[in-house]
Amino acid sequence: MDALACSASNLSPLLGGAANATAAAEYICGRFEAVSNKFVDTGYAIDNTYLLFSAYLVFVMQLGFAMLCAGSVRAKNTMNIMLTNVLDAATGGLFYYLFGFAFAFGNPSNGFIGKHFFGLEAFPSPSFDYGYFLYQWAFAIAAAGITSGSIAERTQFVAYLIYSSFLTGLVYPIVSHWFWSSDGWASPTRTDNNLLFGSGVIDFAGSGVVHMVGGIAGLWGALIEGPRIGKFDHNDRPATMRGHSGTLVVLGTFLLWFGWYGFNPGSFVYILKTYGESGSYYGQWSAIGRTAITTTLAGCSAALTTLFGKRLIAGHWNVTDVCNGLLGGFAAITGGCSVVDPWAAIICGFVAAWILIGCNKLAEKFKYDDPLEAAQLHGGCGAWGVIFTGLFAKESYVNEVYPGKPGRPYGLFMGGGGKLLAAHIVQILVITGWVSVTMGTLFWLLNKLKLLRISTDEEMAGMDLTSHGGLAYAYHDDLDSTQKGGFMMA
Amino acid sequence: MDALACSASNLSPLLGGAANATAAAEYICGRFEAVSNKFVDTGYAIDNTYLLFSAYLVFVMQLGFAMLCAGSVRAKNTMNIMLTNVLDAATGGLFYYLFGFAFAFGNPSNGFIGKHFFGLEAFPSPSFDYGYFLYQWAFAIAAAGITSGSIAERTQFVAYLIYSSFLTGLVYPIVSHWFWSSDGWASPTRTDNNLLFGSGVIDFAGSGVVHMVGGIAGLWGALIEGPRIGKFDHNDRPATMRGHSGTLVVLGTFLLWFGWYGFNPGSFVYILKTYGESGSYYGQWSAIGRTAITTTLAGCSAALTTLFGKRLIAGHWNVTDVCNGLLGGFAAITGGCSVVDPWAAIICGFVAAWILIGCNKLAEKFKYDDPLEAAQLHGGCGAWGVIFTGLFAKESYVNEVYPGKPGRPYGLFMGGGGKLLAAHIVQILVITGWVSVTMGTLFWLLNKLKLLRISTDEEMAGMDLTSHGGLAYAYHDDLDSTQKGGFMMA
Amino acid sequence: MDALACSASNLSPLLGGAANATAAAEYICGRFEAVSNKFVDTGYAIDNTYLLFSAYLVFVMQLGFAMLCAGSVRAKNTMNIMLTNVLDAATGGLFYYLFGFAFAFGNPSNGFIGKHFFGLEAFPSPSFDYGYFLYQWAFAIAAAGITSGSIAERTQFVAYLIYSSFLTGLVYPIVSHWFWSSDGWASPTRTDNNLLFGSGVIDFAGSGVVHMVGGIAGLWGALIEGPRIGKFDHNDRPATMRGHSGTLVVLGTFLLWFGWYGFNPGSFVYILKTYGESGSYYGQWSAIGRTAITTTLAGCSAALTTLFGKRLIAGHWNVTDVCNGLLGGFAAITGGCSVVDPWAAIICGFVAAWILIGCNKLAEKFKYDDPLEAAQLHGGCGAWGVIFTGLFAKESYVNEVYPGKPGRPYGLFMGGGGKLLAAHIVQILVITGWVSVTMGTLFWLLNKLKLLRISTDEEMAGMDLTSHGGLAYAYHDDLDSTQKGGFMMA
Repeated sequence: MDALACSASNLSPLLGGAANATAAAEYICGRFEAVSNKFVDTGYAIDNTYLLFSAYLVFVMQLGFAMLCAGSVRAKNTMNIMLTNVLDAATGGLFYYLFGFAFAFGNPSNGFIGKHFFGLEAFPSPSFDYGYFLYQWAFAIAAAGITSGSIAERTQFVAYLIYSSFLTGLVYPIVSHWFWSSDGWASPTRTDNNLLFGSGVIDFAGSGVVHMVGGIAGLWGALIEGPRIGKFDHNDRPATMRGHSGTLVVLGTFLLWFGWYGFNPGSFVYILKTYGESGSYYGQWSAIGRTAITTTLAGCSAALTTLFGKRLIAGHWNVTDVCNGLLGGFAAITGGCSVVDPWAAIICGFVAAWILIGCNKLAEKFKYDDPLEAAQLHGGCGAWGVIFTGLFAKESYVNEVYPGKPGRPYGLFMGGGGKLLAAHIVQILVITGWVSVTMGTLFWLLNKLKLLRISTDEEMAGMDLTSHGGLAYAYHDDLDSTQKGGFMMA
Repeated sequence: MDALACSASNLSPLLGGAANATAAAEYICGRFEAVSNKFVDTGYAIDNTYLLFSAYLVFVMQLGFAMLCAGSVRAKNTMNIMLTNVLDAATGGLFYYLFGFAFAFGNPSNGFIGKHFFGLEAFPSPSFDYGYFLYQWAFAIAAAGITSGSIAERTQFVAYLIYSSFLTGLVYPIVSHWFWSSDGWASPTRTDNNLLFGSGVIDFAGSGVVHMVGGIAGLWGALIEGPRIGKFDHNDRPATMRGHSGTLVVLGTFLLWFGWYGFNPGSFVYILKTYGESGSYYGQWSAIGRTAITTTLAGCSAALTTLFGKRLIAGHWNVTDVCNGLLGGFAAITGGCSVVDPWAAIICGFVAAWILIGCNKLAEKFKYDDPLEAAQLHGGCGAWGVIFTGLFAKESYVNEVYPGKPGRPYGLFMGGGGKLLAAHIVQILVITGWVSVTMGTLFWLLNKLKLLRISTDEEMAGMDLTSHGGLAYAYHDDLDSTQKGGFMMA
Repeated sequence: MDALACSASNLSPLLGGAANATAAAEYICGRFEAVSNKFVDTGYAIDNTYLLFSAYLVFVMQLGFAMLCAGSVRAKNTMNIMLTNVLDAATGGLFYYLFGFAFAFGNPSNGFIGKHFFGLEAFPSPSFDYGYFLYQWAFAIAAAGITSGSIAERTQFVAYLIYSSFLTGLVYPIVSHWFWSSDGWASPTRTDNNLLFGSGVIDFAGSGVVHMVGGIAGLWGALIEGPRIGKFDHNDRPATMRGHSGTLVVLGTFLLWFGWYGFNPGSFVYILKTYGESGSYYGQWSAIGRTAITTTLAGCSAALTTLFGKRLIAGHWNVTDVCNGLLGGFAAITGGCSVVDPWAAIICGFVAAWILIGCNKLAEKFKYDDPLEAAQLHGGCGAWGVIFTGLFAKESYVNEVYPGKPGRPYGLFMGGGGKLLAAHIVQILVITGWVSVTMGTLFWLLNKLKLLRISTDEEMAGMDLTSHGGLAYAYHDDLDSTQKGGFMMA
C-alpha cells in the first residue's frame, strides 16, 4: 500500500516529459502535504474530543464516590465524608497543577520521579496537551477518595487534610510515574527498551496504580486508628453498622459505573489509530469498544456472583453487597481491560467477587473495620486484577496496545510465559511496600501526634454536629422552625 | 463533482507525454488511495467516538430508572426495586453477550431470529464493531427496567430473576431483530427490498421495540398479580399510594432525559455521512441535531400539557405528574424522532400527555395498579408514537435516514399514503401479540406455580425487611447504636 | 506551506508536455477537490459531535440546579422548587424554539435584537445547524434556574410561570444577542469591525450574559417580596434556615461542575480549528483543554479559600459553604475562561470566594434573604468575573479565540490597556440596568397585583402541601398506610 507522503524528487523524473516537471511535482506534492497536515489537525480534534469527554466521565466518579461514601456511613457523618470528597477534587486540582503532574509525567526524567511541567510550564507541547493533564488529574483525585472511605466516621478533619494532600500530591504521582510514564522503571513503554523482565508491567488503567494505592493507604489508616466504637462487641463479634441510605449507595455505584467508561476505555487516550493497514475496519476504536465490554462484563459477572454467593452465605438478596461486588469486578478488570478477551473478563469478575467476600471475612476475623470495604475492594480486588492480567493477557491485544516491541511476554495461561506475571508480582510487592512506608508512616505519625482519631464523645455525637456545622438532613424540624418564625412575627 | 477515487489507467494516457506516464499516474493515484484509506480510519474514529459516548448515555438511563423507580415506591420496597435495576444491567450484560445480541443481529439469518455472534464470536467485523454491541446492550437492559416498574412492591424476587432473563435474553432481542436487523421481516432496511407494505416499519429508536415491549410485559404482570394491598378500597375507589421520595423521581426523570440524548440521536450510529453532495453543510450530523430537538420538544410539550391538564383535573401543580408526562412524550417521539419536523414533535408530545392521562383513568376504572404507570406510559404513549410516525413522517427525512429505496411510503398526513401507517398498525398488533403470548404466559405460569406474588404479610412488612436484609434508610437509629456501642466500650 | 486547493489552470502549464495536460490537471485537481470536500464533511461530523455532547452536559446543569435548589430549601418546599426547575427546561424548550433563539441569533439584524429563525425556520443553514440551537437552549434555561433560587420558598407558582417565561423568552435572549451574536452592539466578533471601545466585550461563556442576568433578576425578586418568615428576628438578627439535605446540595454541586465542562469549554462550538499553521500540535483543541483547566482551577481555588475562610469566620468546616464557594469560582471564571492562563484562574477563584463571603455579609446587613445565595453567587461573582477578564485576558489567547482583528485590546494587568476593562464595565452597567428595568418592573408589577408572594399561612405550611399535592417525602407513613390497607382488605 502506498504511503500518503509525496516526494517531489521521486515524482519529478516520472513526469520528465512535462513542460516543467519539477514544478509540477512540487505543486502536486505540496497539495498532498497540505492534505497530510489537515489529517494531523483532524486527528488532534478527534483524539481530544475523545479524551476530554473521557476525562469528564472520570470526574463523575468523584461524584459517585461522594454518594457511595455518604450512603455507606451513618447519617451523623454524612457532611464530613462528602466534604472530603469535594476537597479531594479541589486540593487535587491545585496540587496536581503545581507539582503532581510534574512528578508523574515530567519527562525526560529518571525512573523514579518526573521533573518537568510544574505549574503546567511548557504546556502544551507536541507530546502533552492540556486535555491529558485534565484526564490525569481526574485519575489522581480518585485514589484519595478510596482512602477516605476506609477511615470514615472516626478521623480528624485535619488528618484528612494532611494525608490527602500527601497522597494526591506525592505518593500517587510517583507510583503512576513508575508504571505509566515512558521513563518509569517498570513501564511497559520505556523508550530505552530496558523493560522489567523484558516486559514491564501492564496496568492499563490502574488496578495497581490507582486501586491498590488507595486501598493499601486506607488499610493502614483504618488499622492504626482501629474500628469504630461499637463495631465489635466484648466477644469480638462484629455488629452490622448499616450506612444511612441504600439509595445513595446505588446512585453512587451507577455513577461510578458510568465514570468507569471514561476510566478504562478512556485510558487509550487516542482513538484514531489503525492496527495494521490503514483503511481497515479494525483499529484502536475497536480495542476501545472491546475494553468497554470487558469492563462491563467483569462488573456484571462479579455482581451476579455476589448476589448468589451472599444469598447462600447470608440468606438474603442484598443490593449493597451486589453494588460492592460490582465495583470489585471493575477494580479488578481495570488493569487488564484492554488486553484480555471478553470471556476472560467474566472469569475476572467471578473471582473478584469471591476475593471480596474472602477479604471481608478476613477483616471480621482481624477486627478490621472499613466502613466502605475500601481496602478489601480496591486493595484486594485490585491486587487480583494485577495477577489476572499476568495470567490472561492475550498476545495479539498486548502487541496492539503496547506496540513496537515484538515478542514481548503476555499472559501465562495464554501461552505467554511467566515473565509478565513475574513483573506483576513485583508490582504488587513494590506498591504494597511503597504505600506502607509512606502512608503507613504518615498515619502512625499522625496517631502519635494525636491528630488522627477523633474523641469518643465526638464519635458518638457524629462529626457533622461537632465539626461541620450541623447534620446533613432536616426533614422534620422545618415545621417547628417556621412555627417559631411565625410566632416571632405575631 | 469528482470522486476521490483515482484511476491510474485513466490518468496515465493523460500524462502520456511524461517520461514514465504509467509510473507517474500510479505514484499519484497511490497517494490518493492512501488519502482515501486515512479517511476510512478517520471515519471509524469519529463514528465510534459518537457511538460509544451515546452508549454511555443510554446506560445512564438505567440509573435514571433506578432512581425513578425507587422514588415512586414506598420506602419499605426501595432496596428491592433498586436491586432489580442493578440486576437488569448485570444479567443483561451476560445474557446479551452470550446470546441476546446473536438473536437480535446475528446476520445473515431469517426474518424471525438471528443466529451468529454468540459470545461475540467473529467480532469485530466490517459490519459490526464492539461499540455497536455495547450500544445495543444498553438498549436491551432498558426494556426489562420498564417491566419491573409495573409489578413493583408485590413481586417475588425469584419471579423477577426469571422473567427478566427471559425478557432481556429472548423476547426483546427477537422483536429488535424483526424491526432493526437488516434481515428482520418488518425492517425498513431489508437488503432484499421485500419490505412490509413496500415500506417496513420505521421505529427509529424503539417506541414499539423497546417501550411497548417493556410496557405490555408489565401490563400482563401487573394484571395477573393484581393491585397492591390497599390500592383499591371496598368501593373500588383507588387510594393514592405515594412514592416515598419526590426528589428521587425528579432526579431519575432528569437522568432519563439526559440518557435519551443517547437513545434517540445515538440511534443513527454514524455521524459522518453526507446527505447529497460531499462538502455541503447538511448531513447526518444535522439530522442528529434535529433528532435531539424533536426529542426535547416532544418532552417539553408533554410536560406542559400535563402541568395544565392535571391542574384542571386535580387542582394542583404536580411535579411527579409532570415528570411522567415528560417521559410519556419521550416514549412517544422515540419511534419517529429522526423523520419528523420539530413542530410535529410538539403535537406528538401534546397528544402523548392526554394519552397518559386517559390510560391512567382507564387503569383506575379497571382496578389496574402500576406503581410507575409504566404500562400506561411506555405501552400507551409508545403505541401512540408508532401511530404518530405513520402520520407525520416527512418524505425528505425518510429518504435521508432510510436511503436507497426511492419512492418509499411516508406519513399519511404528509401526503405519503397509508402504507407506512398500515405497517405501523401491524407492528402494534404483532408486538402486542408476541409479548402477550410469551410474557403473558410466563407470568401466568409463575402465578400458577405460586412464584409470582409475595405473601400478604411480606407485602405489608415490605420486601426490604423480609428479603433484602433491611430497610434502605437509617436516618435516626444511629444515635442509639453508637450510644449502645459507647456503653459497651465503657 | 502549500494550500490544499488545487488549480487546474495553474497545474496545466506545468504538465504542458503531457499528452493532454489540461485533462490531466483537471483530473488531478478534481481529486483534490473531492479530498477537500471530504474534509469539510469530516469537520462537520467532529464539530457536531463535540457540540452535541457539550450541549448534553450543559443540560445536566439543569439537573444540578434542581438538586442544589431542592437540598437548599426546607423539606416542605421541595416539590415546588423542583417543579420550577423541570419547567424552566420545558417552557424554555418551547419558547426558545418559537422566538428565543430568533431574538438572540436571528441574523442579519440590528444590534439590539435578532429577527430570523422563528420556529427554526430556514434551519439548518451553512451558519447555523440544529446542534447550535440545542446548545443555546441549554444555556437559556440555566438563567431562569438561577432566579428561582433567589425567590424560593415564598413565591406564588403563577408568578414563577410569568417571570420565567419573560426571562427565558425575551430578557435573556436579547442580552445574549448584544454580546454573543455577530450583530450585537457589544459583540467582540462584529462583522463590521465597529467594536465597542475598539474591543467589544469578551464574555466567553457568560459570567455577565448568563450569571449576572439570572442573579440580578433574582435580586429584584427577593428584594421586592422580602425575606422568608423567620429569617430575621425582632432585632434584625438573621436566623440560620438550613436546607433540608446536604446530600442533595453536594449532588447538585458536582453535577453542576460536570455540566460546566459543557458550558465553558463547549462554548468554543468548534474543536477542529488550527491556530497558526496546519499540521501543528496546537489548535483550538488545546484552547479547549486549557479552558477546562482554568474552569477547574478557579473552582478549586475558590473552594479551598472558602473552606479556610469560613473556618476562620464561623469556626467549622462547612461543606455547603465550600460548594457555594466552588460554584462562585465557576461563575466568575465563566466569562474569561478561554483567554486567561491557569495561574490567573487561581486568582480568579480566590477573589470570587471572598466576594461571595462579602456579598453574604452585605445581604445579612440589608436583611436580604436569598435561600440559594443566588444573587450573591451568580450576580456578585459573575460581575467579578467580568472585571477579572478585563484585567487578566492574555494577548495571544485573545487573538486566537477572537481572531481577525489584530491589535485588539486585552487585559489591563497583561499590558493590554484599559479599553477591554472599560467595555466590561459598560457590560456590567448595561446588564444591571436592563435586567433591573425589565425584571425589576415585572416583579414590582406582580407584587402590586398580589401575584408575587404567597400568604403567611401557605408559607408556614409549605407550598408542597398547599399547591403541589403533598410533601416530597414519605419515609415512615407507609407502614400505616399498608396496615390500613391490610385492614380494609380483611
